[in-house]
Amino acid sequence: MFSKILIANRGEIAVRIIRACREMGISTVAIYSQADKDAMHVQLADESYCVGGNRVADSYLNIPAILTVAVESGAQAIHPGYGLLSENAKFVSLCEQCNINFIGPTSSMIGMLGDKDMARKTMRAAGVPVTPGCDIVEDVARAKAEAEKIGFPLLIKARSGGGGKGIRRVDSIDQFEDAFLSASSEAQAAFGDGACYLEKFIFPVKHIEMQLLCDKYDNIICLGERECSVQRKNQKMIEESPSPALDEKTRKQMMIAAVKAAKAVHYVNAGTVEFLLDKENNFYFMEMNTRLQVEHGVTEMVTGLDIVQWQIRIAAGAKLTRTQDSIFTHGNVIECRINAENPEKGFRPSCGRIRRLHTPGGSFVRFDTAIYQDYFVPPFYDSMIGKLIVQARTRPEAIRKMKMALSELTIEGIDINRNILAEILSDEKFVTGEYTTDFMREFEEKRKAES
Amino acid sequence: MFSKILIANRGEIAVRIIRACREMGISTVAIYSQADKDAMHVQLADESYCVGGNRVADSYLNIPAILTVAVESGAQAIHPGYGLLSENAKFVSLCEQCNINFIGPTSSMIGMLGDKDMARKTMRAAGVPVTPGCDIVEDVARAKAEAEKIGFPLLIKARSGGGGKGIRRVDSIDQFEDAFLSASSEAQAAFGDGACYLEKFIFPVKHIEMQLLCDKYDNIICLGERECSVQRKNQKMIEESPSPALDEKTRKQMMIAAVKAAKAVHYVNAGTVEFLLDKENNFYFMEMNTRLQVEHGVTEMVTGLDIVQWQIRIAAGAKLTRTQDSIFTHGNVIECRINAENPEKGFRPSCGRIRRLHTPGGSFVRFDTAIYQDYFVPPFYDSMIGKLIVQARTRPEAIRKMKMALSELTIEGIDINRNILAEILSDEKFVTGEYTTDFMREFEEKRKAES
Repeated sequence: MFSKILIANRGEIAVRIIRACREMGISTVAIYSQADKDAMHVQLADESYCVGGNRVADSYLNIPAILTVAVESGAQAIHPGYGLLSENAKFVSLCEQCNINFIGPTSSMIGMLGDKDMARKTMRAAGVPVTPGCDIVEDVARAKAEAEKIGFPLLIKARSGGGGKGIRRVDSIDQFEDAFLSASSEAQAAFGDGACYLEKFIFPVKHIEMQLLCDKYDNIICLGERECSVQRKNQKMIEESPSPALDEKTRKQMMIAAVKAAKAVHYVNAGTVEFLLDKENNFYFMEMNTRLQVEHGVTEMVTGLDIVQWQIRIAAGAKLTRTQDSIFTHGNVIECRINAENPEKGFRPSCGRIRRLHTPGGSFVRFDTAIYQDYFVPPFYDSMIGKLIVQARTRPEAIRKMKMALSELTIEGIDINRNILAEILSDEKFVTGEYTTDFMREFEEKRKAES
Repeated sequence: MFSKILIANRGEIAVRIIRACREMGISTVAIYSQADKDAMHVQLADESYCVGGNRVADSYLNIPAILTVAVESGAQAIHPGYGLLSENAKFVSLCEQCNINFIGPTSSMIGMLGDKDMARKTMRAAGVPVTPGCDIVEDVARAKAEAEKIGFPLLIKARSGGGGKGIRRVDSIDQFEDAFLSASSEAQAAFGDGACYLEKFIFPVKHIEMQLLCDKYDNIICLGERECSVQRKNQKMIEESPSPALDEKTRKQMMIAAVKAAKAVHYVNAGTVEFLLDKENNFYFMEMNTRLQVEHGVTEMVTGLDIVQWQIRIAAGAKLTRTQDSIFTHGNVIECRINAENPEKGFRPSCGRIRRLHTPGGSFVRFDTAIYQDYFVPPFYDSMIGKLIVQARTRPEAIRKMKMALSELTIEGIDINRNILAEILSDEKFVTGEYTTDFMREFEEKRKAES
């Protein structure tokens, strides 16, 4: 087992990982930006090093500074958390060259799964259902012909796209050519790669993902699904497990497909296979996330397994001690992401000093955060400041429990999204479980109309 | 199901019960003393009524005021929590007469199990092992003869004793007569009943208790044990499950004995059977607690069941939906009781305003409390202000996790027992699991010698 790990992240996930290390008796090295000198992850770690200025690019993405700290502090491994460098194949490759264990898959797995076109081809070859469409087409005329075969609406997607760039929805053939050229040139400008492929646009859909743990000895366990369809501008807001939409048969098929996906790339460590699920229970591979997900705590609570500790054990060469038939889920778990933002003002991010803080507690309630009384929430980072997770016997009870926990949460000094989360939990479409990724658009329209 | 419940308690347990009601969609009625007007349980309940002055006798034990509030507010049931009126057969009988559901067993069950002599006889008849000894002896000379048969050391115990009153340890025959007369007269003065019985003093022992849930239809499930041997002056400080002392065979025997005990009195609702366990794995019935235990959260975490919700469901006439073979425990759970007291000054209780508060959170950590930032801890009540509970895969990991969680707990403005708890968790006898109820005496002696 490692004796010292560097945590290349900040906020609640850095705290989460430091706690896991401490529980395992592993020393921790924190890195931080100038703005984060008083951050909780800095206070909890055994050693802390400033790696640069306030902006993420200057600090948490500062690869030379981070690797220098890792080597100088004697860290044997780096846990990247989520976001930031967690899916950066170049960073992982540098770790490999420096003989530092990256807690996650290898750089080549990350590279392969990060190339959307290649991932599609690999999955299709492995028998994992992918969205109907066609592979990379360089020529506009040929692309147009393919588009007509696929039918409309469809999506044009850049192979190297990300963060909403290099993607276009096309509803009819006469829009196609313009959209294709603009997606391609946007991707060329942003990623140096203008190659695009086409996908049928499936709608309405649910976003359902399968959590996997894979050790270095080809053992894979699937910890079940999380439904993450409550999204606003591709940002998840509420996640739950089990999904109210999955029947046992579809769940089983999706789990088998997820395991196939991991096997196809000889995947190692924690990974998540994201699927789209349509109304007829058809599901399609969307992508495989090669890192810890924000919402991993949902699965931890519903299965009782500690995913972060397993990531560390797997990276250190341990075998999975649990087999698929020993994995059970207990009741229903819901997570709400608590953001420092003002939903009444277009979800404008909020920052400032937390004057009063009261966090919910008690039975089957979990709150992951890095904020504390008198902490100053800096303006430079993601607005998520906490994750509230509850568990109950049934979905209606879990919804009630979450509303209660939200009502107990008090954060004064900054704006938070507490009230809109409570409203969502009362919305009929959420209550019946019949929500899709279009839910938040509808919800906001309805809300606007009513105000 | 009930639509409104009165919670006849204060502090963390009142908050715990109110949360359970809210999760179940049940309205809550809080009662409070003048000193508790700003208490969290008052803030969380739907309705709150002051029932008297600061002292417990004037408020939380004020039966007429409490019953009046129950009737006037339209509460269909009363949850008593632990302590206070929770095992007061007279109060329960009055509830029965007022047609208010008492969330617990009937007054006759409480009466029978509260009479220690009768409980011993009932258990012995039911085949539950009880400590060797003899039943009520009125006559000193006969008692002396019985004492010689039992052998020394032995305990003289008043039938109606409690809170350490009416109990004497006797090490030799020449001390016997004085001790017997003094125990008897002390009990006569305190409880109006001087009758005493004798018990062999078994030493060293572990305190191990079995948690039961019994519905009104003779279904009983045993949720396993809690070991509570870390006690100071009969006050438990640290509890854990599973007990490091129990092998599978003894655990099974003890579970069977606990179920027998409940069956012997046709017990209904949550109950706990306390046993003494000696070095040779012999165990003896000590008493059956007819209420929710402080440490019930340990069992909730290790089994995943919500005991308070089950208490409410059972009282409302629901059947247990879980069977014994569906009960599994997951890993190791440890609880530390956080007290407002100063261990360096003879555990002197502390009160005052909480200026800074930071509570541990994250995965598999639970903190039950009723304190909050700027809350004033009043001097009138029990010093326990929180219960910190953690869960991990193994006992060494749970110990490490608890130490970490304790180190994250920050309460400024009052004294707390955090540091001594951390010291206990590092003590060799605790670490090996070989501690007995004598542990704290030894620990404090060693500590004194070292200072």
